Amino acid sequence: MSKEIERKFLVVNQSYKSIATSCDHIVQGYLSRNVDATVRVRLRNDKSFLTVKGRNHGIERDEWEYAIPLDDARSMLQRLVDGPVIDKQRYIVPYSGKVWEVDEFSSPDAGLVVAEVELSSVDEEFDIPPFIGEEVTGDPRYYNSMLGVKK
Amino acid sequence: MSKEIERKFLVVNQSYKSIATSCDHIVQGYLSRNVDATVRVRLRNDKSFLTVKGRNHGIERDEWEYAIPLDDARSMLQRLVDGPVIDKQRYIVPYSGKVWEVDEFSSPDAGLVVAEVELSSVDEEFDIPPFIGEEVTGDPRYYNSMLGVKK
Repeated sequence: MSKEIERKFLVVNQSYKSIATSCDHIVQGYLSRNVDATVRVRLRNDKSFLTVKGRNHGIERDEWEYAIPLDDARSMLQRLVDGPVIDKQRYIVPYSGKVWEVDEFSSPDAGLVVAEVELSSVDEEFDIPPFIGEEVTGDPRYYNSMLGVKK
Repeated sequence: MSKEIERKFLVVNQSYKSIATSCDHIVQGYLSRNVDATVRVRLRNDKSFLTVKGRNHGIERDEWEYAIPLDDARSMLQRLVDGPVIDKQRYIVPYSGKVWEVDEFSSPDAGLVVAEVELSSVDEEFDIPPFIGEEVTGDPRYYNSMLGVKK
């Protein structure tokens, strides 16, 4: 188990692109959107993963991730996924000693761009890059598991 | 992915015990009871597994199973499981060329005993052992994922 401590922000310009060190194609869906135990299937380029996450406690969350065969992940995405499949590009963006992940969604919320930074403690301080806008940490509207789900 | 084709029966006497070749202690719980994508965490003696199952189609069901570290499984059972944790003894019982699994539940439905046989096709014929009673294949009351869940 790892402990995930993350803060999430909206993105206001594309300045992350010029400093990004990589860009991955991610396709993912949810076997469970239960907030107490989210279960996600993800393709990331040519790898795939099954990930279990617990409930958010503030900005902390338990996470367990397992590599699984690509064919298994594709079958689950086709056959089992509850709700929309998410398709996004993830840019890895180093900035002032931290690594940001910037997700550009093409489905279901085409045009949405969100940035996350992983912290080592809940009160860790960090510099805000110039592409960062409003903070949306803990806002369920921006949970990947809730995107495109009918309310 | 494997395809699970199983028939399930109630058990009417203990004659399975004298022909059982092994008995395992199983503790399991569910991260998702969604009938379209059940996600189960199981400890089986000193091993543990994360298992995803699709919706039943008649007596067939898709299944994907991954071995996971024991500590991960224990944490998920303690922290994430939705509803009761199931505790049972599983006897492996060969009979007339087929292998039966007989589950004696100690929690949540103490005293319930159910037997399953895995088939290679939906219309495969097989001999009925003397401990077998009423067939309950497809009856949601006997889904492990539904035991002890408030209706």
